[in-house]
Amino acid sequence: MKHHKIFLPPEDIYPIDDWRIVQKSFSEKYLAQDETLFAVGNGYLGMRGTLEEGVPCAQRGTFINGFYESWPIHYGEKAYGYAEEGQTMVNLPDTKIVKIYVDDEPLALHVADLVQYERALNMKDGILARSLVWKTPTGKEVQIKSKLLVSMEYRHLALITYEVVVLNASANIIISSKLIHDDDRVVHADDVHDPRKAGQFEYSVLSVEHDIVQDDRIVFGYKTQNSGMTLSCGMDHLIETKNQYKRKIERAPHEGKCVYTVFAQEGQPFRLDKIISYHSSRRADPKDLCNRAERTIDQAITMGTDRVIQSQKDYMAKFWNLSDMEISDSDYRTQQVLRFNLFHICQATARAEGTGVGARGLTGSAYEGHYFWDSEIYVLPFLTYTEPRIARNVLKFRHSKLDQARERARHLNQKGALYPWRTINGNEASAFFAAGTAQYHINADIMYAVRKYVEVTGDEDFLFDCGVEMLIETARLWYDLGCFPKYGDGEFRIHGVTGPDEYTAVVNNNLFTNMMARENLRFAIDTVRRMQKERPDAFVTIQRETQLDMNELDDWQRAADHMNIPYDEVLQIHPQDENFLKREIWDLEKTPIEKFPLLLHYHPLVLYRHQVIKQADVVMAMFLLGNYFTPEQKKRNFDYYEPLTAGDSSLSACIQGVLASELGYYDLARQYFHHTVLMDFGNVAGNVADGAHIASMGGCWIFVVYGLAGLRDYNGQISFNPHLSNGMTFLKFSLCIRDAILRIEITPHETKYLVTEGDFLTITHKGETLDLKQGEMVVRRDQ
Amino acid sequence: MKHHKIFLPPEDIYPIDDWRIVQKSFSEKYLAQDETLFAVGNGYLGMRGTLEEGVPCAQRGTFINGFYESWPIHYGEKAYGYAEEGQTMVNLPDTKIVKIYVDDEPLALHVADLVQYERALNMKDGILARSLVWKTPTGKEVQIKSKLLVSMEYRHLALITYEVVVLNASANIIISSKLIHDDDRVVHADDVHDPRKAGQFEYSVLSVEHDIVQDDRIVFGYKTQNSGMTLSCGMDHLIETKNQYKRKIERAPHEGKCVYTVFAQEGQPFRLDKIISYHSSRRADPKDLCNRAERTIDQAITMGTDRVIQSQKDYMAKFWNLSDMEISDSDYRTQQVLRFNLFHICQATARAEGTGVGARGLTGSAYEGHYFWDSEIYVLPFLTYTEPRIARNVLKFRHSKLDQARERARHLNQKGALYPWRTINGNEASAFFAAGTAQYHINADIMYAVRKYVEVTGDEDFLFDCGVEMLIETARLWYDLGCFPKYGDGEFRIHGVTGPDEYTAVVNNNLFTNMMARENLRFAIDTVRRMQKERPDAFVTIQRETQLDMNELDDWQRAADHMNIPYDEVLQIHPQDENFLKREIWDLEKTPIEKFPLLLHYHPLVLYRHQVIKQADVVMAMFLLGNYFTPEQKKRNFDYYEPLTAGDSSLSACIQGVLASELGYYDLARQYFHHTVLMDFGNVAGNVADGAHIASMGGCWIFVVYGLAGLRDYNGQISFNPHLSNGMTFLKFSLCIRDAILRIEITPHETKYLVTEGDFLTITHKGETLDLKQGEMVVRRDQ
Repeated sequence: MKHHKIFLPPEDIYPIDDWRIVQKSFSEKYLAQDETLFAVGNGYLGMRGTLEEGVPCAQRGTFINGFYESWPIHYGEKAYGYAEEGQTMVNLPDTKIVKIYVDDEPLALHVADLVQYERALNMKDGILARSLVWKTPTGKEVQIKSKLLVSMEYRHLALITYEVVVLNASANIIISSKLIHDDDRVVHADDVHDPRKAGQFEYSVLSVEHDIVQDDRIVFGYKTQNSGMTLSCGMDHLIETKNQYKRKIERAPHEGKCVYTVFAQEGQPFRLDKIISYHSSRRADPKDLCNRAERTIDQAITMGTDRVIQSQKDYMAKFWNLSDMEISDSDYRTQQVLRFNLFHICQATARAEGTGVGARGLTGSAYEGHYFWDSEIYVLPFLTYTEPRIARNVLKFRHSKLDQARERARHLNQKGALYPWRTINGNEASAFFAAGTAQYHINADIMYAVRKYVEVTGDEDFLFDCGVEMLIETARLWYDLGCFPKYGDGEFRIHGVTGPDEYTAVVNNNLFTNMMARENLRFAIDTVRRMQKERPDAFVTIQRETQLDMNELDDWQRAADHMNIPYDEVLQIHPQDENFLKREIWDLEKTPIEKFPLLLHYHPLVLYRHQVIKQADVVMAMFLLGNYFTPEQKKRNFDYYEPLTAGDSSLSACIQGVLASELGYYDLARQYFHHTVLMDFGNVAGNVADGAHIASMGGCWIFVVYGLAGLRDYNGQISFNPHLSNGMTFLKFSLCIRDAILRIEITPHETKYLVTEGDFLTITHKGETLDLKQGEMVVRRDQ
Repeated sequence: MKHHKIFLPPEDIYPIDDWRIVQKSFSEKYLAQDETLFAVGNGYLGMRGTLEEGVPCAQRGTFINGFYESWPIHYGEKAYGYAEEGQTMVNLPDTKIVKIYVDDEPLALHVADLVQYERALNMKDGILARSLVWKTPTGKEVQIKSKLLVSMEYRHLALITYEVVVLNASANIIISSKLIHDDDRVVHADDVHDPRKAGQFEYSVLSVEHDIVQDDRIVFGYKTQNSGMTLSCGMDHLIETKNQYKRKIERAPHEGKCVYTVFAQEGQPFRLDKIISYHSSRRADPKDLCNRAERTIDQAITMGTDRVIQSQKDYMAKFWNLSDMEISDSDYRTQQVLRFNLFHICQATARAEGTGVGARGLTGSAYEGHYFWDSEIYVLPFLTYTEPRIARNVLKFRHSKLDQARERARHLNQKGALYPWRTINGNEASAFFAAGTAQYHINADIMYAVRKYVEVTGDEDFLFDCGVEMLIETARLWYDLGCFPKYGDGEFRIHGVTGPDEYTAVVNNNLFTNMMARENLRFAIDTVRRMQKERPDAFVTIQRETQLDMNELDDWQRAADHMNIPYDEVLQIHPQDENFLKREIWDLEKTPIEKFPLLLHYHPLVLYRHQVIKQADVVMAMFLLGNYFTPEQKKRNFDYYEPLTAGDSSLSACIQGVLASELGYYDLARQYFHHTVLMDFGNVAGNVADGAHIASMGGCWIFVVYGLAGLRDYNGQISFNPHLSNGMTFLKFSLCIRDAILRIEITPHETKYLVTEGDFLTITHKGETLDLKQGEMVVRRDQ
């Protein structure tokens, strides 16, 4: 806990504001992290919060979820079955650039004399706005107001409004609105030793295949070099002004631009609306994609930019209606930052259709835009309980990649299906198998998320249409992966796997993996048997297509029933893996703070031979499968692992916090809450400049709902055990449970439950069963 | 055993010949492996046995031991402490080329009409010779006789003699003697999936920095791109003929050549002696190196080529005097192939001064010319007992890299020194730590070889001048690496290491590693204590320089005394590592033969979770440290591991064979002997085309001496327990032991011991102590 510091941006620059992230004066010091914090996106298209002027800039970035370049992975020493092809989310052409020159003097914030400045990400409306007054060297005061949105309603559309007025004189103004496409080959030299960063291409990934340059409009069509994916990217401009102006349109080697020369009268504004569209495809003709971009732009023009802005506000209102969390905390920034986290999840997932959720969403290039287990385990709970439509999309994406997972298992000499540890296109892209492919638990994590989704939403069609096929193949993998060894004790053992904690690797009987695998097997058995009974016709098809022999279920049952669950009788705790307790204990207290994260300062072999934990592992099992542990076991386990946990992964703090809360370690839980809620806003991991930690943001919601409200939902049974953290006076949020919407309001003294939609709901409050009917508020006071 | 087939070259092409490797007719089918089998070298300079004409050719190759190019290792995913810089032995300019054109018709063996052909590597003389009669398309019969030697006496010198005569006509002959330097950037596209092959450069490694082109002489000076090493390479020519001829000398972009146009009269020979020299350096000016090459050439010319040839014969006579093994076997090829193996060790080591011994010697580019543990454990026994001078050189090389080993340990957060798993320049070059850096046992292997060397030779100066420093630092590494864990049973445990068997990796308490580490610790303690007593002055220096605290010795003693030695009470065997027996058993019998070697067909994770062994590991421990096992334990262990051993490493068969022999499994031992002795000549590993397996050749000597003669030399005590393999009628060989030379002659019925140099020697024969005096033969008949 004390190993990672919170670096809060100062309040005088970044004031507290419940609904906005505000920057009141420009500071270059925070430039890189601002680009992440002010990023906008809709889950399909994302833009980092770089400045309109293009400079100063840390990392330009515009991304489409699932749009990647592939490249051959090089290994110093290669072996059979290694991932062959890397996949990296491509940094797309940048359309945000609007440069301004007043009397030939360019605006650049880091050197400009700014009379007034404010930049604000309005989370309620989903709009990033900036207003400033610039005093030019000749004393002219130029006011500029701009807005940027990436449309939630129209996922291919983005919009910039840009209004400039010279307040105290007339002036010649040049506005150059650009589309730049030279970013795809940027090579960052900094810190190539950090395995968490993205690879960079040394060649130009995108080649221009088509272009349209006409009037105020420029559209380019592109193709990637290796992956062969295609893209179009276009912009058009609407002008509103009483000033005289001229327009010139240009296509240069690395950009297209519309340049407006304005003869600006004192006090007379010039407004430019820049309408932007991106379309992408696996293989469509770039020319066709250009046409699609034109249609998106045409529609937006027809609709009018005001209606585009209104549609954004409408969408966000709907989002917040179900997803908002109101909280009152002695730390006044909590409300703001909590919403900030939820807002960024929305931006990472809202229109993620046919894709997964990248580790950094669309806010940065770290982890190369890959999808990991954390989307299912950290992000899906929020989506399942507030936007089940999106949760379903994410799980459907996994189902669409089942054939590739089957092929991967076959290639690795295994039966069933093995999901890739990290991927964009469904193929394994992990270049270090010990902390990649060996994390077989991803199979069970996805199945766990399917189960939760089905239990919470009641969407049994999804279970039987998609889930069952995944369940059969993942169960097969587990049965084939583990064994009843000849010299064993009759237990089903799973060898050579890596659990969530990457500071140990390729171990035997990782507790988390074995328990999750057992759950996977049991859920598969239950689902198959239920389907056979309840949907016999569809079952015949599934059975034929998966060539399922019903005897396999007996094998799975035997493996589940005899699953090895490591337990140490002396310490009465669950070892993280079979040999964990035999290792040397790492003294985190004596490790200098500059040695964190440990992975950047110690060789894997050194970490592997110590008891030292990157992130919750046994503790994670106690969260996801808490019903399998006694309270005493939980306490002993937590007490043992907490001092060994470096928390070097952003996925750790939230889960440690939930368990700390459950065990009554409220002070520790509150510390973990601070680390969780401030992970990005307070740059706890130290690398927010590279993108937002979407999973940790989901972990923040998990902490509030599971840690503060005490939700537990084992086997579809909803129970609460609220306990606000010291300093909190209220907490309000909503959950969608099957067809009901449950509003919950917690204060230190009472809890209110109200079903606003759906007929009724049965829940448990601190052990008491409550039957909730629509419109009837139930209040429970604490003793 | 049955998993790898022997592919013997057919006797009609390669007849049996006790002292020569002979090829009686040219066959392209065997071209690639012939290039390895007919390779010549002296441990400093090596040339693959490619044809003079340059084509046809599989892999051209000329190498200098220790001459490498470096390059940044690329990792798909990198972590702290990974090896940064690859090192690859450079393929040098080829000076062997002598092309011939008769009446403008070029000779190329694969299309030529050959009336007579013989190529023979004369192992007694150390000379490769070829003679052929070529019938040109116009019916002219051209006889060509050539010889090639790489001088043992003058390590920078090589010599080709080339004599041509037209037997039945006169003709115009052009002889083009070349030096080609375009091989350093050859890219092989084939089988990049095989981790055992060498990397190839995609750029030209050597740049020409200087040249001398004058009369019949061409010398080039070069520099490598990254490592900055320098090289010179030159040739001069002596002509002897009564024919008229003209000479033209040329320097082209990728070559230099001397072209002789000969007006050859019927029956009148033209002889060309090509004198070749190579010099190399870490940083000398290429111009200076050119001068050195000229001096070498000048000296050879002064001496005369006949004396160069004679010096080669003299050197080899001395070599064979002590190293020869005479054997009579029902398999008539045994004598030839046994000598072939010894001869190739000689070629790989004779003049290896200041360097190690590469895995493939100087016969091919596989394993990139790297030095591994196998030089100490497989090659050094032969050198220690027959050429202690060379053994000392190899060990001194390790001592010269001690500072780098110290730095490597420090970088990996460890105390002491850690030798690199694979290296040329002393830095770790292994790009896969699980089967590289994790093989910490290399530290103990080197110390084991030091101990054997000192015990056998009595060279205590080496021990106290070089050995003790290495011993102190390696002991420190072991003590720091292992631990007495908090929840342990008081045993010293070593976690997260890989033993010799690479089909398991990063395990706890690998038996081999723990036993070898214990030996390392004990030898360090003994040596330090002895030195303190016997050489107190020198000891003060060592103690100061290593900052040795004598209390460290108590720690080492405690670690050694409490070393964890895995033992299974139920099976009464030693598990290969702590968890080995819990794994699933791999059924080698049911594995299709085309799936061998397993590493090319199964993912490491699959191999790691099974009981399947690439190469002798526990069995290796029972060979090196056999005095720590009871005969019953040895039998039970061997019986357990033999069926699990795939033998996918060329290092396996010899050691399995020695133990099979010790345990009385004579048929099995004989099978293993065949695999060992024929590893390269019979292409057992399937990749002899990429170079000779020098360690396995050393293993062949080990098998004969330890397996057949039953030598055991624990604690410096020499004992024999001879048992010839079925079909063998005699075996004769010599050993140097301290100042004595011991000649041994074994038949199925008796053994003769004769000390020919040195005063006396005490040995044990089948339990009976024999005091041997010089010149007095002792004969022991079997019952």
